[in-house]
Amino acid sequence: MKDLISFGEVMIRLSPPGYQRIEQADSFEAHVGGTELNVAIGAARLGLTAEYITRLPKNSLGYMVRNRIREQGVDCSRILWSDSDRLGLYFVEEGSNPRGGDLIYDRAYSALSRIDPDSLHWPELLMGYRHFHCTGITPALSPDTAQATREAMAAAKDAGMTVSFDVNYRAKLWTEDEARRCLEPLMEYVDILFSSVGELRQIFGIEKGNLEETASAAANRYNIGVVALMRSEKHSVRRISWRAVAFHAGTLFEDIPIEVEIVDRIGGGDAFAAGFLYAYLRKDQDVAAALQYGNATAALKYTHRGDFSWSTLDEVEGLIEGKGGLAMKR
Amino acid sequence: MKDLISFGEVMIRLSPPGYQRIEQADSFEAHVGGTELNVAIGAARLGLTAEYITRLPKNSLGYMVRNRIREQGVDCSRILWSDSDRLGLYFVEEGSNPRGGDLIYDRAYSALSRIDPDSLHWPELLMGYRHFHCTGITPALSPDTAQATREAMAAAKDAGMTVSFDVNYRAKLWTEDEARRCLEPLMEYVDILFSSVGELRQIFGIEKGNLEETASAAANRYNIGVVALMRSEKHSVRRISWRAVAFHAGTLFEDIPIEVEIVDRIGGGDAFAAGFLYAYLRKDQDVAAALQYGNATAALKYTHRGDFSWSTLDEVEGLIEGKGGLAMKR
Amino acid sequence: MKDLISFGEVMIRLSPPGYQRIEQADSFEAHVGGTELNVAIGAARLGLTAEYITRLPKNSLGYMVRNRIREQGVDCSRILWSDSDRLGLYFVEEGSNPRGGDLIYDRAYSALSRIDPDSLHWPELLMGYRHFHCTGITPALSPDTAQATREAMAAAKDAGMTVSFDVNYRAKLWTEDEARRCLEPLMEYVDILFSSVGELRQIFGIEKGNLEETASAAANRYNIGVVALMRSEKHSVRRISWRAVAFHAGTLFEDIPIEVEIVDRIGGGDAFAAGFLYAYLRKDQDVAAALQYGNATAALKYTHRGDFSWSTLDEVEGLIEGKGGLAMKR
Amino acid sequence: MKDLISFGEVMIRLSPPGYQRIEQADSFEAHVGGTELNVAIGAARLGLTAEYITRLPKNSLGYMVRNRIREQGVDCSRILWSDSDRLGLYFVEEGSNPRGGDLIYDRAYSALSRIDPDSLHWPELLMGYRHFHCTGITPALSPDTAQATREAMAAAKDAGMTVSFDVNYRAKLWTEDEARRCLEPLMEYVDILFSSVGELRQIFGIEKGNLEETASAAANRYNIGVVALMRSEKHSVRRISWRAVAFHAGTLFEDIPIEVEIVDRIGGGDAFAAGFLYAYLRKDQDVAAALQYGNATAALKYTHRGDFSWSTLDEVEGLIEGKGGLAMKR
Amino acid sequence: MKDLISFGEVMIRLSPPGYQRIEQADSFEAHVGGTELNVAIGAARLGLTAEYITRLPKNSLGYMVRNRIREQGVDCSRILWSDSDRLGLYFVEEGSNPRGGDLIYDRAYSALSRIDPDSLHWPELLMGYRHFHCTGITPALSPDTAQATREAMAAAKDAGMTVSFDVNYRAKLWTEDEARRCLEPLMEYVDILFSSVGELRQIFGIEKGNLEETASAAANRYNIGVVALMRSEKHSVRRISWRAVAFHAGTLFEDIPIEVEIVDRIGGGDAFAAGFLYAYLRKDQDVAAALQYGNATAALKYTHRGDFSWSTLDEVEGLIEGKGGLAMKR
Amino acid sequence: MKDLISFGEVMIRLSPPGYQRIEQADSFEAHVGGTELNVAIGAARLGLTAEYITRLPKNSLGYMVRNRIREQGVDCSRILWSDSDRLGLYFVEEGSNPRGGDLIYDRAYSALSRIDPDSLHWPELLMGYRHFHCTGITPALSPDTAQATREAMAAAKDAGMTVSFDVNYRAKLWTEDEARRCLEPLMEYVDILFSSVGELRQIFGIEKGNLEETASAAANRYNIGVVALMRSEKHSVRRISWRAVAFHAGTLFEDIPIEVEIVDRIGGGDAFAAGFLYAYLRKDQDVAAALQYGNATAALKYTHRGDFSWSTLDEVEGLIEGKGGLAMKR
Repeated sequence: MKDLISFGEVMIRLSPPGYQRIEQADSFEAHVGGTELNVAIGAARLGLTAEYITRLPKNSLGYMVRNRIREQGVDCSRILWSDSDRLGLYFVEEGSNPRGGDLIYDRAYSALSRIDPDSLHWPELLMGYRHFHCTGITPALSPDTAQATREAMAAAKDAGMTVSFDVNYRAKLWTEDEARRCLEPLMEYVDILFSSVGELRQIFGIEKGNLEETASAAANRYNIGVVALMRSEKHSVRRISWRAVAFHAGTLFEDIPIEVEIVDRIGGGDAFAAGFLYAYLRKDQDVAAALQYGNATAALKYTHRGDFSWSTLDEVEGLIEGKGGLAMKR
Repeated sequence: MKDLISFGEVMIRLSPPGYQRIEQADSFEAHVGGTELNVAIGAARLGLTAEYITRLPKNSLGYMVRNRIREQGVDCSRILWSDSDRLGLYFVEEGSNPRGGDLIYDRAYSALSRIDPDSLHWPELLMGYRHFHCTGITPALSPDTAQATREAMAAAKDAGMTVSFDVNYRAKLWTEDEARRCLEPLMEYVDILFSSVGELRQIFGIEKGNLEETASAAANRYNIGVVALMRSEKHSVRRISWRAVAFHAGTLFEDIPIEVEIVDRIGGGDAFAAGFLYAYLRKDQDVAAALQYGNATAALKYTHRGDFSWSTLDEVEGLIEGKGGLAMKR
Repeated sequence: MKDLISFGEVMIRLSPPGYQRIEQADSFEAHVGGTELNVAIGAARLGLTAEYITRLPKNSLGYMVRNRIREQGVDCSRILWSDSDRLGLYFVEEGSNPRGGDLIYDRAYSALSRIDPDSLHWPELLMGYRHFHCTGITPALSPDTAQATREAMAAAKDAGMTVSFDVNYRAKLWTEDEARRCLEPLMEYVDILFSSVGELRQIFGIEKGNLEETASAAANRYNIGVVALMRSEKHSVRRISWRAVAFHAGTLFEDIPIEVEIVDRIGGGDAFAAGFLYAYLRKDQDVAAALQYGNATAALKYTHRGDFSWSTLDEVEGLIEGKGGLAMKR
Repeated sequence: MKDLISFGEVMIRLSPPGYQRIEQADSFEAHVGGTELNVAIGAARLGLTAEYITRLPKNSLGYMVRNRIREQGVDCSRILWSDSDRLGLYFVEEGSNPRGGDLIYDRAYSALSRIDPDSLHWPELLMGYRHFHCTGITPALSPDTAQATREAMAAAKDAGMTVSFDVNYRAKLWTEDEARRCLEPLMEYVDILFSSVGELRQIFGIEKGNLEETASAAANRYNIGVVALMRSEKHSVRRISWRAVAFHAGTLFEDIPIEVEIVDRIGGGDAFAAGFLYAYLRKDQDVAAALQYGNATAALKYTHRGDFSWSTLDEVEGLIEGKGGLAMKR
Repeated sequence: MKDLISFGEVMIRLSPPGYQRIEQADSFEAHVGGTELNVAIGAARLGLTAEYITRLPKNSLGYMVRNRIREQGVDCSRILWSDSDRLGLYFVEEGSNPRGGDLIYDRAYSALSRIDPDSLHWPELLMGYRHFHCTGITPALSPDTAQATREAMAAAKDAGMTVSFDVNYRAKLWTEDEARRCLEPLMEYVDILFSSVGELRQIFGIEKGNLEETASAAANRYNIGVVALMRSEKHSVRRISWRAVAFHAGTLFEDIPIEVEIVDRIGGGDAFAAGFLYAYLRKDQDVAAALQYGNATAALKYTHRGDFSWSTLDEVEGLIEGKGGLAMKR
Repeated sequence: MKDLISFGEVMIRLSPPGYQRIEQADSFEAHVGGTELNVAIGAARLGLTAEYITRLPKNSLGYMVRNRIREQGVDCSRILWSDSDRLGLYFVEEGSNPRGGDLIYDRAYSALSRIDPDSLHWPELLMGYRHFHCTGITPALSPDTAQATREAMAAAKDAGMTVSFDVNYRAKLWTEDEARRCLEPLMEYVDILFSSVGELRQIFGIEKGNLEETASAAANRYNIGVVALMRSEKHSVRRISWRAVAFHAGTLFEDIPIEVEIVDRIGGGDAFAAGFLYAYLRKDQDVAAALQYGNATAALKYTHRGDFSWSTLDEVEGLIEGKGGLAMKR
């Protein structure tokens, strides 16, 4: 049985090198990324078998995306191809204290946003997989992607798969109200919710006295087995302390925070989900282990250039066991 | 009195460095370009006062474009700004024999294509200028840009300005039939037509025994004062021999061909128009001189990285006078 | 009425990439900069109309400088051109604790240093502007530039303009004694003095018990309306805490310090002056506001590659209002 | 049934950028390549299903190689991994007339050269494939790789597969005598021989009056169905005219030569084999078609950066049909 | 009399730019380095006359290495050349908290490891020098290099030279046991031992209550005049506090720690030895001064790209005198 | 006895990458070069012992120059250092047909141009060398460098050395008249004159019917043993055919022309002199051999990035023997 299948939009990210601003750029570094793909790749690098479903334009840019997915060992043989639509892009400028960095989405009219939901035969696509992952970004793209996401989640539940969902609220895509109206009905399909205290408050209106009560309230309201809340203390734009928590069966699991010198801010949360799902699926749904693997994978990701987590299982486990860290291995 | 005002779409061009294919790229060089802007800049660098009208998104990418226009001394103070639409992009890969190179337009839904033609008050915008330049690309973008182009040309004629038009047929934007139906009615406003033998045949159905008869037929059919036909002999993808001609008042003007080692294939025709218009406007509509300036400016442009002509008047005149050429000035 | 006109020397800065030393370099990044130009550009980006007066060699390097000034929307149409003199250059290597970085001036014999003061008709040049800005670097270059600076300041006062002056003492250009003898007589023209505690002590011999007394002493001695003192706490070569103060009408204005992760050390003080002058001129000479705008603009500048401040007004005000900061806008 | 499986050594190629010499280099571009892999990738890009067998070190360099194979859609799931041996490298400097370019092999002691031939179970590995491809480089690496090659070829014949073999004589690896003694016994397994007139003479001592007689002599002596001889006329180091021929069933097939402006000299012959095998396997062993596809794929490859052919089937067929060529598609 | 001669292996280091991982790399920056060479170069830059003995392959890579040694003013005219062996390489990826960085040695079968110890006539090679430096890496390479190291040290003692030895234990080259068995017998020749608390414990089994006792135990056991222990407090992968100590004649010398923002992690210890030996040899074996010079040279080295220390004597002494530091010299 | 000593100015060359214009540049590649140094380095790489005399500023730029001289094995231990003067620079943009390329000298006020001729004790400096080389550029810099050149040449003759002189007329430094008045008196010291037909005509007014007569006239008028005339046929800016000749003892020596694809236009003539002098000094003043070596070294130089010739003796002799050329050695 194969492990994980995810669905969403993949874009090319264009970033000026070396802390330049977008306005200054004479060149852009190009990375491929998209939250659901990032999760599939991060998990595949740790050892899960993974597949990714999306829709791409049939041109060199689409081929580049396909290549980079294949490069990481994620199956993309059932990707849909469009003869006319465009590939979503986004432009990112890295920040440095006190400049927070900026991001311009140029993803409207993308091939995925124009997908025909009926072209996706979910029961067939999901067959043979144990777990389905998706996020709150895909439904924000268009009514069609919202429908496809909902149908996929429902089909996964029907097939007895576990389902994880990352809220991933993007203020540049929709309002908090729109997000709530669309996402709340999806919660019934969710086994593992990845979110943050801020999102629970903004999107779902859940705000309690402390972390545990907040996570518990979310788990109870939507009957979700695991609620993982991503958190970091931002010492500065380039230095954070990562310390996510997970709530399951009445218990709040915590882990030691990990100090991070950021190389690339994008994809940390996705790497958390990847590490979490790897351990969850491979270690008998052990939430404490899943949290550890998620935290280590996330912290390491922030040191990788690009949207993907490039960690190996050895590295993640090395960090967990305290063997990783400050020294260079010679 | 100011010299030249042009109207059209400007994009960011993204090209992989060093003959890489788009599919291989890890980074893209970014250049700003658009045929009508290229003409305005090329002409401004030779000494004309020039302005450019377009519509840009109000974000870092739009600011980058504005900056690069200002950098070249072209007035862009009356550019329109959009709060929501995107900037057109295009991806180019350079060819090398026998690979011809490729180009992906990603310009749909651009700020210019969604312009409200009524937001452009042409009589006011054109006031104080002697010449208006536009091309067949702008009308191909949307019905709105087609309307805006037509209204601009008509307003220019009404204001007693001269008007130049570059057919610039782009098969990736529309069919030959669509182009003909849209462009033929515009010919009544044209004083100087920039085109090629191929376009005259494909778009306007004009095909005669020789160059002179073909140009003459176009001039007569549409009552156009000057028909300039851009031509080059392609020795290979990287080496051409440039040799445009111009027809005026019953005479075909020819010039010696110029051997070119190509650094950048984009913008040669625009540089021809820039050089042509410079001399036409500054040398009493002397078509023979205009052809010479156009040819020299075009040939030099092919050796400039990016879409713009970076020649100075000294360099263009140096090449015309035979002082330019093979030796490095030490 | 236009806002700000400044006068000084602009150079090309050559810096090895990526913390390389100058001695190691195989390539240099090229930036255009000069303190008075940096102020004009920083202010223009925030919304002031600005012009810059200098003298440049009539060659590709001079054109490059002119282009980059135009790119930022600063008027440079009255720049003087030299047929023979050179452009000033400077080489910078970035430091990293405990290496402080180094700077080699190669600006002797520059076009500006050889200007004929009589070629500058200040009453005419300044006409239509509200404010004149210059610094203590220009008079250090040559007797001619010292004379030109003095005449400009006097003409500005005569014309009823406000005048700001940044001491900018450069030990590589002259001794403290030379600086004092030249600069002290200029103080009578100054309305806003940008300096530091160190400079007040070294150059003007002003050293008091605390910041307020020091600033007050300078203001009183030279009858200067506003004395702004730039300060930063240097945690390391790459991390500082910026906290300038301003003294006006018997009051010392202070602001909260801003933590900065430095991308580029050059131009922070100039950005302070730009932000300060923007608010001073646009907000009714409100010194408290000017200090806030100056501080925010300075702190953000340190995160911009190159000599110029690339901030927009939105960004500066966002930082002031606490909306800026650590998060990337998604 | 799957199409093609190949076996050989893959290396990382390190090349100084921009025509620098190796001795001058401060950086190296890194490409993955190896003749048998290049063939598999070139063929997979045209549409064949392909797999590649090799042995790699289990470290980041080995992972990089695996990634780049996966990226191109070639199956590498049965690659063998070594815990201790190294990855072969080679350093290449590009030439420019009259400097021919240079190449340093640093491939001794590589993981493949130290393979245990008994670790390769060829009947099982080859099962399900129609065609096996290998070259004369692999047997040159070590007695073990020579044995593995021989066993693979024999197993392929036993399994009823067709076998192609590229002589690929490398003077830096062995002498002509050594090559002959090792390769001649392999000829009995070969259905399609890729070689050159020079190799037939140097290695096999076959030298006849003309091309046809030479190819015929090789085909007859070793009873080989198809002998394809790669040829190019070298106008200069950077410009060649490619014109391979093929001999089959008493007939010499020729094609029009293709003018090439070289971007990268490595891998042209491999691309020829890839294109040839694609058409041979997909077009009923039509040798005339195979030659055309081989020539077009080879000529296009020389314009691709890196060792791999990045052509699509559309591009190869476009060139064959004369639609490719000098113009950029707009 | 000349100052310092060292013997060891020099390699080319290949590092992906900008915190990329090795697995991600499309290019590698190339630096030349090797611990014993780094010491010779660091010392030569401060003013010692220095020579370096090694064995290199006679190809472009070997020439590159020779060039870079000459560039720094270290005599390499007596280097041995191999016609067949390879140059050692190593691949380094820079870390960022919590990723520690990685290093792949590809130095097996190098020209030095295959040296014939009898080809080195140490009494003649060492003649005219005051000091010999070597490390524990060279003996780890092969029995031949172990023999050569031993013979060199013995010959140096015979010639009345002082000898320094840096333990430099590399777990990727040999086990702690192997190291101990090989290195312990060499201690009799050592006048100055560079090591660390960890190495004394791991390799020599020396572990005492505090720093002084540990250093004292090592000095006593092997009768070594100076034991210098390199130490740093690692705040993070990119930020350390350097604070080596030295033990001599019953006294533990300490110095103030120096805060370091790391640009390049390789070569700090070698720079320490270089600075230490410079002052030891030029300042009458003043260990307190040697420690200061060593610490300053080490701390500055971490801010230099590449394996070498690029400091000048002025800079080292400036840092010692507190004139160096945070400010850029303008 | 050592072979060759030369004297002149060395500069840093700053060139925009990739055929960009100077005006476009955001970065510059930095190379070290100067005609007399280029000759010394080219000759040293072929096997001559060589030294170079110049005057450099005592800063990082001067150190960079010193390093690059040492890197090539040319002795620079007697270079003079200036505490205040600057290093000469020059900016080069590469041409491409029909753009000829451009060069901006920024060498005024350089350390060499301000040398005190009395600081150079030529008899002592030249002692132990067989040959002195200088050019017509040095005397063009200042009266002091003219005096130093004259004194050096005279001292070399006095010491019985042979003297070579390259006219190297630079129109950007002086007029033809100035050059003639300064250079003609130097001819009495010259044994080998490197020049061109154009220079003989422009500077010395020698213009005869054919090459032989022209060379003969120069040799006779100034009693010069060998007159070597550098020539190339320029097919385009990037492609030339090199074909120098030499006249000696009544005979015109010619060689086959060599087709060149240019990588870098600077330094071809210097490489010719280097190759010529190598063979002249090592092969018993055999002018025919010297011409061959000069031609091969020159042609190869045009394919090397930077000002220096990076050829080895093997490569030069390989090209002469026809073994070099179009094929890559594998």
